[in-house]
Amino acid sequence: MSSLLKERVKCASLLKKVVTHPRDLVSLFKHGDYIGMSGFTGVGYPKVVPQALADHVQENKLEGKMKFNLFVGASLGAEVEDRWAKLDMIDRRYPHQVGKNIQKGINEGRIRFSDQHLSMFSQNLTYGFYTKECANQKSPINYAIIEATEIKEDGSIILAASVGATPEILHMADKIIIEVNTALPSFDGIHDIHLPLDPPHRKPLMIENVQDRIGTTGLKIDLSKVVAIVESTKPDNTGGNAPEDESSKQIAKNLTEFLISEVDAKRLPKELLPLQSGIGNIANAVISGLVESPFENLTVFTEVLQDCFINLFEANKLNFASATSVRLSEEGFKKFYADWDNYKNKIVLRPQTISNAPELIRRLGVIAMNTPVEFDIYGHVNSTCVNGSRMINGLGGSGDFLRNGKLSIMHTPAARPSKNDPIGITCIVPMVSHVDHTEHDLDVFVTEFGYADVRGLCPRDRAKLIIEKCAHPEYKPILLDYFETNLKKCLKTSSAHQPHDLSTVFKMYQNLQEKGTMRIEHW
Amino acid sequence: MSSLLKERVKCASLLKKVVTHPRDLVSLFKHGDYIGMSGFTGVGYPKVVPQALADHVQENKLEGKMKFNLFVGASLGAEVEDRWAKLDMIDRRYPHQVGKNIQKGINEGRIRFSDQHLSMFSQNLTYGFYTKECANQKSPINYAIIEATEIKEDGSIILAASVGATPEILHMADKIIIEVNTALPSFDGIHDIHLPLDPPHRKPLMIENVQDRIGTTGLKIDLSKVVAIVESTKPDNTGGNAPEDESSKQIAKNLTEFLISEVDAKRLPKELLPLQSGIGNIANAVISGLVESPFENLTVFTEVLQDCFINLFEANKLNFASATSVRLSEEGFKKFYADWDNYKNKIVLRPQTISNAPELIRRLGVIAMNTPVEFDIYGHVNSTCVNGSRMINGLGGSGDFLRNGKLSIMHTPAARPSKNDPIGITCIVPMVSHVDHTEHDLDVFVTEFGYADVRGLCPRDRAKLIIEKCAHPEYKPILLDYFETNLKKCLKTSSAHQPHDLSTVFKMYQNLQEKGTMRIEHW
Repeated sequence: MSSLLKERVKCASLLKKVVTHPRDLVSLFKHGDYIGMSGFTGVGYPKVVPQALADHVQENKLEGKMKFNLFVGASLGAEVEDRWAKLDMIDRRYPHQVGKNIQKGINEGRIRFSDQHLSMFSQNLTYGFYTKECANQKSPINYAIIEATEIKEDGSIILAASVGATPEILHMADKIIIEVNTALPSFDGIHDIHLPLDPPHRKPLMIENVQDRIGTTGLKIDLSKVVAIVESTKPDNTGGNAPEDESSKQIAKNLTEFLISEVDAKRLPKELLPLQSGIGNIANAVISGLVESPFENLTVFTEVLQDCFINLFEANKLNFASATSVRLSEEGFKKFYADWDNYKNKIVLRPQTISNAPELIRRLGVIAMNTPVEFDIYGHVNSTCVNGSRMINGLGGSGDFLRNGKLSIMHTPAARPSKNDPIGITCIVPMVSHVDHTEHDLDVFVTEFGYADVRGLCPRDRAKLIIEKCAHPEYKPILLDYFETNLKKCLKTSSAHQPHDLSTVFKMYQNLQEKGTMRIEHW
Repeated sequence: MSSLLKERVKCASLLKKVVTHPRDLVSLFKHGDYIGMSGFTGVGYPKVVPQALADHVQENKLEGKMKFNLFVGASLGAEVEDRWAKLDMIDRRYPHQVGKNIQKGINEGRIRFSDQHLSMFSQNLTYGFYTKECANQKSPINYAIIEATEIKEDGSIILAASVGATPEILHMADKIIIEVNTALPSFDGIHDIHLPLDPPHRKPLMIENVQDRIGTTGLKIDLSKVVAIVESTKPDNTGGNAPEDESSKQIAKNLTEFLISEVDAKRLPKELLPLQSGIGNIANAVISGLVESPFENLTVFTEVLQDCFINLFEANKLNFASATSVRLSEEGFKKFYADWDNYKNKIVLRPQTISNAPELIRRLGVIAMNTPVEFDIYGHVNSTCVNGSRMINGLGGSGDFLRNGKLSIMHTPAARPSKNDPIGITCIVPMVSHVDHTEHDLDVFVTEFGYADVRGLCPRDRAKLIIEKCAHPEYKPILLDYFETNLKKCLKTSSAHQPHDLSTVFKMYQNLQEKGTMRIEHW
């Protein structure tokens, strides 16, 4: 046993459970098991035991014969999740995922993926909604495999760079395997662990400011469930950030302009309200844009902290950030660990049931921002399925925030390239091919061409504004033609609240499939 | 001034503002005004002044020349709202409506209707989201016209059979007109009025049980805003209830069967969790079905109390009910008023921002139930727009409850008659023509043929179960054919997470328009 591991595992009874060779654990698992793992957006996930299991499957040609039901707060690192998918080791998967192979498995019908709101996943798990057919209803998760950075004298766990659904997964687990990562510093002090009781015993979440704490820094578990402690020395496999391009910088500029106008109109205080931001280069550009903005003393109540938030801290613009995961690049993590004592007091990591709680998002008046696959002229949004059918990653926490924020903002480039056409795909369509967020939830749409503030508008007025302010110039006449033609038609049949023609509404998608572009000649 | 009015208006300074002829108030209003009214689901709305205004428009042929922006918690009585719509007196309308003429106006493009979540309407109003262009940003509602049943010595208002958005409307109003209804008993004691502060000052809602109170029975207002007190003697115009038919009774039976199985599986306590129910004959049948069920000591946390809840009280099954409105038939109101001292202690009426608060619905673990226009094989739901275009009433509080309840249940007959065919319209379709609630939010679908418990299922498994358990036998093969054909197609292109063919997906609707039935021969 390494001296580093001894130092990190301060609980004597658990130190006795150290297993030196993770391979020795492989025999525990059997086809059909329900497995929970720690991890969220590719940080804080177990790195050793899942790999040992994958090695076992690969070496013994057990592809498709060792399939598991996999429960994780959100996505794991690709070297775990995507490798499992490639080896056909995943039957059911909840509630989010990232990786080419897992997407392939889902869209090829091998993996049964249930796309869930991240705030609801943990509670539905404790409610027993996903494990109805399990024999052991009290502990239906056969094994929980989690990453820790320290274990305290009393056996409480200090998690790593994410909390996610780990408290609930451990609560529902029959047996627990803990990977203690000695290559990371101990994250002691940054977490705020609170496991809400199920109704009818649930209490209010007494958080009134982003920095308020309601739980403990360590995660208390039933020590008798622990079957093994394993040392891990592998870092989180996060990769770099997608670079900001001109289009995303212009989107950020338009969004900042909108926020400034809201402050001027006194609908937002000058330090704004807590910010939430999705993942990706546009989200990065938007948050980075705030470095140059007049705003100060900002706060963040979000799901994931990316590098851009570290930049905002460094620019002295950001006072405090609450999230469930810190997902930084290698470079970002270096900065973060080097300045640990500072960040520990400026960041809190909560379970996703708290970071994404509708109760808190609405109370705090969060400004929610996200990037969709596409949105439509009436304000419905597709965040998950291309062509209505092909799953990308899932909706994550977008619904939690967009439905409950004071302001709900969608930002995207107006068009994207298809194979044949640099603007072959318009992100603004007559009707989205899949709806994850409805017209009832969105306030503002932003593209590089401008922003449409649709608050209080009826669908017809929304359509005109969205086309005018957000659509790519090449698609404007096409979309306007759809709207005006069908407005006229629907007026004749007294059905013009939200004018549509269901026989042509998806014509642009068919054109894309047949001719490689959504630029159609006529409706 | 009547002696009854004198008795009800206990505040001396307000008694001076009594106006005997409501017509004298007509000259106050001008074209383009923002008008707020009390009222919710056709109870507790002002009955005298809006009628005087309508008379004025009608007599002076001012149709289309006296249009207002109308803000009400939900729907008004038909004799007000529908008459205003007929006289073309409504420009914009928030956030819900009921009535043939107002629907006509909306679908003919004359009325700009913005369909909003009822829990969000009040706060978006205080945020100034609907009144961005008003000159007076502090008090952008020019006139609030409300119904009261009493005014206390200190000027605080005792509302009538609904609270709705009245507290926020009065808060945002420049001038207030109060109709004191002397034909109704005083509702003193039943309300719990609480006006949440806007972020960043908002506090937790300290309600842990349906009967908890956090506010006051009277509504405090700025007395200097009151311009007139008017006596009203007209009852709420609620009409009777739609009768329960065999189909809705069978739906209720299937739903009760599901609830019993949840109790057996220990996923629900034996007294269930607080119930919420939509409006209509199916909702009525479901709640009435509980009278015959084994459940006792039930509680209700809902938006509207209909007659069925009174039946449940009378059967000694129901301990307490929280809502924002009591919408009873004439007969129901008689019972209610006769037993006022009893019901006053068993019912609380809250503002809709509290009755429909995501915070409370999730904390209490509400069992949410509603009736849609249609749902699809993957679990998306249309609650508002026929053919994707024609608005009916709006989504009301359905989203507030279905998104946050512990269990979210949709119940509907499997098919409805079209003009040509007694089952010409299937309520289960391949893809709904408008999405109000997404696949991420629904747990259980119920029709007269059975129930589909889709919790934890991937879309492909959901589709098979929904078709098998819920679809009308005549539509089963049609739907199964769609699913299986497109599953095969989408598997070929690795896009089979949620198999669809966008070129045929709405074919049933076209068939309905052309041939009067959704029963198509082939896809």
